[in-house]
Amino acid sequence: MRGVYCDGRSVRLRDDLAVPEAGEGEVVLDVRAVGICDTDLQLARGYMGFRGVLGHEFVGQAASGRRVTAEINNACHRCATCLAGRPRHCPNRTVLGILRHDGAMADVVRVPERNLHDVPSALEDREAIFIEPLAAAFRITEQLELGPDVRMAILGDGKLGLLCAWVARRTGARVSLIGKYPAKLALAGEGIATHHLDETQALGRAFDVVADCTGSPTGLPSALRLVRPCGTVVLKTTVAGTYAIDLSPIVIDEVRVIGSRCGPFPPAIAALASRQIDVRPLIGAEFDLDDAEAAFRAAAERGARKVLMRVSREGS
Amino acid sequence: MRGVYCDGRSVRLRDDLAVPEAGEGEVVLDVRAVGICDTDLQLARGYMGFRGVLGHEFVGQAASGRRVTAEINNACHRCATCLAGRPRHCPNRTVLGILRHDGAMADVVRVPERNLHDVPSALEDREAIFIEPLAAAFRITEQLELGPDVRMAILGDGKLGLLCAWVARRTGARVSLIGKYPAKLALAGEGIATHHLDETQALGRAFDVVADCTGSPTGLPSALRLVRPCGTVVLKTTVAGTYAIDLSPIVIDEVRVIGSRCGPFPPAIAALASRQIDVRPLIGAEFDLDDAEAAFRAAAERGARKVLMRVSREGS
Repeated sequence: MRGVYCDGRSVRLRDDLAVPEAGEGEVVLDVRAVGICDTDLQLARGYMGFRGVLGHEFVGQAASGRRVTAEINNACHRCATCLAGRPRHCPNRTVLGILRHDGAMADVVRVPERNLHDVPSALEDREAIFIEPLAAAFRITEQLELGPDVRMAILGDGKLGLLCAWVARRTGARVSLIGKYPAKLALAGEGIATHHLDETQALGRAFDVVADCTGSPTGLPSALRLVRPCGTVVLKTTVAGTYAIDLSPIVIDEVRVIGSRCGPFPPAIAALASRQIDVRPLIGAEFDLDDAEAAFRAAAERGARKVLMRVSREGS
Repeated sequence: MRGVYCDGRSVRLRDDLAVPEAGEGEVVLDVRAVGICDTDLQLARGYMGFRGVLGHEFVGQAASGRRVTAEINNACHRCATCLAGRPRHCPNRTVLGILRHDGAMADVVRVPERNLHDVPSALEDREAIFIEPLAAAFRITEQLELGPDVRMAILGDGKLGLLCAWVARRTGARVSLIGKYPAKLALAGEGIATHHLDETQALGRAFDVVADCTGSPTGLPSALRLVRPCGTVVLKTTVAGTYAIDLSPIVIDEVRVIGSRCGPFPPAIAALASRQIDVRPLIGAEFDLDDAEAAFRAAAERGARKVLMRVSREGS
């Protein structure tokens, strides 16, 4: 079958991959559409040493005809971490298209059956590929009490920053989105203040919560300049490798820094299906899987919107 | 009067300092005894650019004869931060012997009257100088729910590490103290497991809470190797300057990192007065203020116990 294979240095479309077979508790799905995210671009450059098929934001179709997507952490559901209610952190886990498990940029993908979620018919495939990143944005609402009393800044006007801003706004929080690109800041929409990164000094240390969605080593220092004493910084993006940083403001100002990764699919699916969160303005170019290499080049362009690939003929 | 003056490069005892006068809402106290802490040693090397009299762990005597100590953050009590209930973080604050306010390594010290706390008669001066650092250890109990279900590791067997271990133990938490010095680990006492730093790999990622009391750039990376996914790292010590660190485990394992600085005096005073926490094993050499420079050398020795200076003749 076809698949976008990562060898740790680059990606290329192969057509000689074995079709995966379902193991116990697993299903195989025909992939309809799959998105390219920043993690994919990092994996392609060697992040985490992944070797295999990329892709973890997808819509597939089961043999029954069900249109589905899947959570990406494949847990053992037997270890102490799983039994403590944290299967997303299972030390034995594989992660779809990221860690020891082939992903969905292929004709067929193999996933645990318990990870499946139905995709409502109201959702187009190109919207449904946002379920996984939107779930990651909803993770913040599991970790923090957001609401009208909360002043929240989102650093980074990329796709994840916008998704986080929209999720936070729905809680009633007073949200400021801070970024570099006027065209992207303009997507924030009603009820969200927007600021260019250069203006942040004037904002002062006024925010109860600052979410770093920059993917940049400058994100955390910027967040520490915006958060109030005893406030919270949410790290939504990883920065690969070590970098130099002064952590003393965390102690002096008693800031709480919380890492935030994968989140719950059901609220993301509901918000998309009802169009309470409308991701269509975030969609950029669409490619056929056969043009995967061009799709990756498009996704890597500065300021690119979400690039997605159509896989099966059913993908529409 | 006499005072230990910091010029940002070194400290020296001066005898030509003006006796401070109380401003509005302030009192002047005759200092009885004062401790030297690691922050003083850092300030002496230029940390925070402080110029003035050092000393923030002290016992004084008011004109009335009352034996007292004082909280160290001198807030304005008028700004938004103060009115939000966070006077220790007042942006207009001075800090005794640390930030724009002369400290207590002198014959006389000036402090806000509202910062005073009585020192119970059961407490000797040499114990009472631990009120401020013990309050800092109690800060953790304001920030986190500790109790019998919590497995907690304390990194660093210095004075602050031991104080934090004792405070945590009183909550019922299962405490492990991790350090380098068998003689200091032996002070932990009943109900606290002790481990040499070299053994920590074998401990695994087993702790719900890890408090970094090392004052070292290696503290946070070590803590991130010990804390369980979704667990909490408490940063009790600052590390001056920038250093290189890989923060991606915070995101991947969704760790919460909390800065922790000054804490509540009343529980510290009560725990010392009842000897539920007995700090006497932590007391090292005692000097007269006239021998301040020798006292600083003693405090700077590796593994030194608490060095204190007697100031007034009443200090006993």
